[in-house]
Amino acid sequence: MPKSLLRRSLQGYQPYVPGEQPPDGEGWVKLNTNEAPLPPSPRVLEAIRAAADESLRLYPSPTARPAREAIARRFGLDPAHVALGNGGDELIEMCFRAFAGPGETVAYPTPTYPLLEPLARVHETRTSTHAIEQPWDLPPGLGADPSRLKFIVNPNSPTGALFDREVVEAVVAASSGVVVIDEAYVDFAPHDCLPLLDRYPNVLLLRTFSKSYALAGMRIGFALGPVELIEALDAVKDSYNLDRLAIVAAVAAIEDEDHHRRIVDEVVTNREALETSLETLGFEVVPSSTNFVFARPPKPAAEVVAGLRERKVLVRHYDREPIAGWLRITVGTRDQQEKLLSALREIL
Amino acid sequence: MPKSLLRRSLQGYQPYVPGEQPPDGEGWVKLNTNEAPLPPSPRVLEAIRAAADESLRLYPSPTARPAREAIARRFGLDPAHVALGNGGDELIEMCFRAFAGPGETVAYPTPTYPLLEPLARVHETRTSTHAIEQPWDLPPGLGADPSRLKFIVNPNSPTGALFDREVVEAVVAASSGVVVIDEAYVDFAPHDCLPLLDRYPNVLLLRTFSKSYALAGMRIGFALGPVELIEALDAVKDSYNLDRLAIVAAVAAIEDEDHHRRIVDEVVTNREALETSLETLGFEVVPSSTNFVFARPPKPAAEVVAGLRERKVLVRHYDREPIAGWLRITVGTRDQQEKLLSALREIL
Repeated sequence: MPKSLLRRSLQGYQPYVPGEQPPDGEGWVKLNTNEAPLPPSPRVLEAIRAAADESLRLYPSPTARPAREAIARRFGLDPAHVALGNGGDELIEMCFRAFAGPGETVAYPTPTYPLLEPLARVHETRTSTHAIEQPWDLPPGLGADPSRLKFIVNPNSPTGALFDREVVEAVVAASSGVVVIDEAYVDFAPHDCLPLLDRYPNVLLLRTFSKSYALAGMRIGFALGPVELIEALDAVKDSYNLDRLAIVAAVAAIEDEDHHRRIVDEVVTNREALETSLETLGFEVVPSSTNFVFARPPKPAAEVVAGLRERKVLVRHYDREPIAGWLRITVGTRDQQEKLLSALREIL
Repeated sequence: MPKSLLRRSLQGYQPYVPGEQPPDGEGWVKLNTNEAPLPPSPRVLEAIRAAADESLRLYPSPTARPAREAIARRFGLDPAHVALGNGGDELIEMCFRAFAGPGETVAYPTPTYPLLEPLARVHETRTSTHAIEQPWDLPPGLGADPSRLKFIVNPNSPTGALFDREVVEAVVAASSGVVVIDEAYVDFAPHDCLPLLDRYPNVLLLRTFSKSYALAGMRIGFALGPVELIEALDAVKDSYNLDRLAIVAAVAAIEDEDHHRRIVDEVVTNREALETSLETLGFEVVPSSTNFVFARPPKPAAEVVAGLRERKVLVRHYDREPIAGWLRITVGTRDQQEKLLSALREIL
């Protein structure tokens, strides 16, 4: 392009590249983007169909009010403690808009969700990164870091490891700025950081309907936090960031707790089987608190990934240190995992 | 809130406040947010219902590919000339992310869409505003303005007036940065700026499904432009900014051109009737090229708006100069307009 048209600070910018979405119905075993192995609640599908009527000519509630109220009920909170986003990604972006501007600094452990770095670039915020030594240990310098905004993805991606609540709490307590705990995967973990909400004015939790509610296709995330931080997110958000059907889907999903539990139970059961099988095949496996397994194959990862791809199995792999040579494999159905494992047996 | 948690530059920030969305089914005559008077295409509703299946567990196409292709076909373009947004508002925000960073300058005529000013604040861009003297004349200084990014809402809101293509073209030709022409309302106007796409590397057109496709509730906007500018928007967008149902709705809507024409024809017919009736009631009316009428009542606007509200009629009004005392009234159904007019007859 005429280089002068692009914002100066973005010249040479590398965007975050999401995992591949092959066209539907082509028989891929898709274990690369951490989608749920089970479908969404039938009540969600019914609610969407019922809402697909002429009211779509009208704008949605700017605050996604019905969703906010249903989520608040689920967590025993007032709706003023809940904000909605067009997926968790939008909420992360809203945190930049609200809490850390150009020239200010955002801190986070690495490796972590690779969206943070390009977002910092777009918002011209500096980054202060803290290398993780062991997947389950938060870097000790994160608490004392004076950055205005910190992100802790917990459980972390791509490692799948959970940081202890006490250690996360110590970071929050030591921080004068906002600490965002991205709990996208927390429903698959043994504990969460909800108790911190009562104790600190500077903590925000991010959640999503994409994983444990099987609604990645609907783009719904939410934040839980103090009223003042929620108001700040609302002030900087797009006017109508959730469409009418996403609002309806969120309400139906959060109210079908039985279905939600079914998805979580299926993932946790299959995850244990997958971890064991991968270890048997010679993989190094990080114990997972998520709906994926982070593992290093006994052969070069690029070779394994290419072999899987030939057999129509997609997984995510990493080629940058310190995680070069590792794979991130989504927990699938029993059947999908069998296909993965038999492909791996051929390749290894 | 603990003021120190909010980004310094946002302290005292006033967000854009969208028009009121009263809860559904309470009998309001809603002429305040420029929604369509007719429902969306029945094919759109069918397509959404058919897509509300278990594939919602999967992420959508990151590029909203089926929608991009359908829109490209409609305009006889290659899909590389089309970008999608979660409503036109997100596309405007993406233009800031891509083309004008902190400390750079964004130029636009005023009055115009009141979202631009708060977005500039969030992105810490300076603004260079050019006051409109007559609603249908672009301010003469806009072309020579050296800003990196310019917005022209055409037809403009809230005035409803259309700037001549030749005058807009002169601004594009004189500008070294990107000129975004927000054509949200252009389907109701006698001409658009599509021909400029072939001639200039620095022009982007924004369109929306919210008005002339009756899909405000689905949040779908699109941009048409040179490949390089479209790539820049794609690079800075959220990874999955349109959900699966929005993509399906966009395809079905753009392919039902008959229904689209029906909505446009209804609006144009009713608009003429509304303009005439308002003039008869003593309003000053700006000739409209949109789906709303900008008009000044013969009594104080606040009084008129309060009287309408008592009678369950919502319109938008303005209390800041130079448009203090003016109303923006959405073109409705014949029936809605009759209710508006009989309410006005009581009030005036």
